[in-house]
Amino acid sequence: MVRQAQSELATTRSITHPRQPARRQLFAQTAAAAAGLAGLAAAGQARAALPVPESNLRPGTPIPENEYGMPSKFEAHVKRRRTDVLVNKQNFSDWSFTPVHQQHGIVTPNGLIYERHHNGVPEIDPEQHRFAIHGMVRQPLVFTMSDLMRYPSVSRFYFMECSGNGLTDWLKPAAKTVQQTHGLLSCTQWTGVPLSVLLDEAGVDPKATWGLAEGADGSAHARSLPIKKLMDDALLVYATGGEMLRAENGYPLRLFIPGWEGNVSIKWLRRLKMGDQPWHLRSETARYTDPMPNGKWRQFSFAMEAKSVITSPSGSMKVQRGPVEIIGFAWSGLGKIRAVDVTVDGGRTWRKAELEEPVLDKCLTRFRLRWNWDGSPAKIASRAVDSTGYVQPTVEDIQKVRAITGFVQHHNGIFPWAINTAGEVSNAIA
Amino acid sequence: MVRQAQSELATTRSITHPRQPARRQLFAQTAAAAAGLAGLAAAGQARAALPVPESNLRPGTPIPENEYGMPSKFEAHVKRRRTDVLVNKQNFSDWSFTPVHQQHGIVTPNGLIYERHHNGVPEIDPEQHRFAIHGMVRQPLVFTMSDLMRYPSVSRFYFMECSGNGLTDWLKPAAKTVQQTHGLLSCTQWTGVPLSVLLDEAGVDPKATWGLAEGADGSAHARSLPIKKLMDDALLVYATGGEMLRAENGYPLRLFIPGWEGNVSIKWLRRLKMGDQPWHLRSETARYTDPMPNGKWRQFSFAMEAKSVITSPSGSMKVQRGPVEIIGFAWSGLGKIRAVDVTVDGGRTWRKAELEEPVLDKCLTRFRLRWNWDGSPAKIASRAVDSTGYVQPTVEDIQKVRAITGFVQHHNGIFPWAINTAGEVSNAIA
Repeated sequence: MVRQAQSELATTRSITHPRQPARRQLFAQTAAAAAGLAGLAAAGQARAALPVPESNLRPGTPIPENEYGMPSKFEAHVKRRRTDVLVNKQNFSDWSFTPVHQQHGIVTPNGLIYERHHNGVPEIDPEQHRFAIHGMVRQPLVFTMSDLMRYPSVSRFYFMECSGNGLTDWLKPAAKTVQQTHGLLSCTQWTGVPLSVLLDEAGVDPKATWGLAEGADGSAHARSLPIKKLMDDALLVYATGGEMLRAENGYPLRLFIPGWEGNVSIKWLRRLKMGDQPWHLRSETARYTDPMPNGKWRQFSFAMEAKSVITSPSGSMKVQRGPVEIIGFAWSGLGKIRAVDVTVDGGRTWRKAELEEPVLDKCLTRFRLRWNWDGSPAKIASRAVDSTGYVQPTVEDIQKVRAITGFVQHHNGIFPWAINTAGEVSNAIA
Repeated sequence: MVRQAQSELATTRSITHPRQPARRQLFAQTAAAAAGLAGLAAAGQARAALPVPESNLRPGTPIPENEYGMPSKFEAHVKRRRTDVLVNKQNFSDWSFTPVHQQHGIVTPNGLIYERHHNGVPEIDPEQHRFAIHGMVRQPLVFTMSDLMRYPSVSRFYFMECSGNGLTDWLKPAAKTVQQTHGLLSCTQWTGVPLSVLLDEAGVDPKATWGLAEGADGSAHARSLPIKKLMDDALLVYATGGEMLRAENGYPLRLFIPGWEGNVSIKWLRRLKMGDQPWHLRSETARYTDPMPNGKWRQFSFAMEAKSVITSPSGSMKVQRGPVEIIGFAWSGLGKIRAVDVTVDGGRTWRKAELEEPVLDKCLTRFRLRWNWDGSPAKIASRAVDSTGYVQPTVEDIQKVRAITGFVQHHNGIFPWAINTAGEVSNAIA
């Protein structure tokens, strides 16, 4: 079979290919190689046209006992990375960024979900972990993990984004790659128990309006959350992407608040205290607030508004003349993505991108647009519209309602990439 | 904040809990512990009721440079496993099974996607890899990986199942766990190029009716496939679950044939040859065929028909009296899952299970049913119905149209689990 096929492959020859200039050269080289072997038998020429790979000629690696697989050694460059723009003095309170330009589809691999810790990653034994609901409830409750895992669970696809995603790149370029401008963004299927079920069991006092969620980490990171959201779609999550949480993502238990800034989805969750007002914690006064034009600071701006970014071509990539597929992500913390427009001329004209199914609520949506790059300088960007009708703003639009001074949270502005005549792509925010 | 909360937690006390018998005991123990500290201050009692975890008292582990994350050490038991039922003399042609009972949601983690190799896992450098389309085409084509990755891609959620999934358990129990009865089953989002796009470029001869797909592995595993399916929804896949293929799943390129037996989705794909008849290869004569009652063997039974299985409770698990959530997977290679029925009395009566969205074509669908186990012996099973109206059969139904002798492929029969008075769950196929 294989040998017969090899000689047939001798018919494989150089072709011109209108849509793939790069390939034309490939075939020229292949033909030259074949010509160099003109004196050999057909099978010989076949090998020149399409050599039988070494891997066909010997057994591969057998299956190990009880294995958990890892990526190919040829993909070792695909990693979460710390920022080289905003360098911390220490790395206990730190970030690592998802390589969104290397993500295929909408599911972020568990090993690449972005990290944000306020005092490092705790090691928690699930047998020892407890979760409590207390405060303004009829009946305080304490749960073990095995208690929680007996409850009916749900699995839902949602994005998660840090409120600081993009904060180094408001008014002039700072980061080079989309991993560093937009990599505090991940998407996965979250599995856990609807919080409303447990709050109903505890019997929340009708006067309770807020809940305090606190983690079991070294910073005891905590946030105040309005009861309306807690009863709506908040989840007590123990699994993502098909398996139990990774330690850095809250193992064994975390809160997940769909569509809201990531820091409220408290990891390593140990308690939820119900009360009748917010607690005004450090993360609600010194952090995670937005400066307003009048000099005041806005608290509790939880929802991540509609946003999108082109992930390919993106910063530090190089494009070739001819067909280019422009792809990216769009998402909204307030609903589904309704449309994405793409410009290749710096915003003068916009074209509708194709959205890939499934398009889900509060979930990453893939958009794609076919483009033919003629080699002249170009500025490309995307603009998302969500199911509420909200249109992703420009930075100029945002400046009309907020003060942009230094590192500011909640940057959902339209983000442009520049392509020069050499095909080099760079951050064009300005 | 934290200290104040601790003293408030002293109010946490033992309760009875109608829906969670296990928890009643937990609270009794907790109360006893608190009582043992009666002489201490409120804060002391608080710690007895809900001790401040060690993890709150010190920094955790900082973020490493350029990291690819791994599961928690407490989850080290969640692995792909080789079978202990059908032991191979050697493990170059072998299987490893997905722990479907430990999977949450519908996405199988890339490290746990089941494996089936005919001669081990080759190591292939993507720079060196080539894919050819030849045979009955107007223009033979050879592609590099970078050629292929410039094409417009699609990302789609599909299940993948080996035709041998369940072959040890037709007429009497052999395997103990659902990982070994049904673990040759995985589901992920597949990213790649529709094969139809490349076949159109090659210009398929109108007389061509079949294609031969061959891998670059040590077995040169190959299958004949009808052109209708190749032009319909076949994909040239380079990524799953958000990242490039793992070596054991075909890196850098594989064929994926949605809904059909896994062995036709040729891994490490190096060529597709178009022809006007099937090749009747070893994998189409000596393997992957079905014995019929008349003594003949059926070839080319590609589609995996509608099937389902309860993954929890399942073999080797233990259930407690009271509320039990019955959960499992349903799937069909011929469409979407329309309904899943569940029996808890060995098939005398059936109840509609809840299906979790999104319910996608040729994709795993999660079903759930609330059940209250009273402690008496029970036999539970699920039955899937797909969008074509096809109903998952019993083994007896299948025996009417096929010969079941020894290890037979394509077992989509209803699969029961028995629960004894001790709550122990076991394989009840018979």
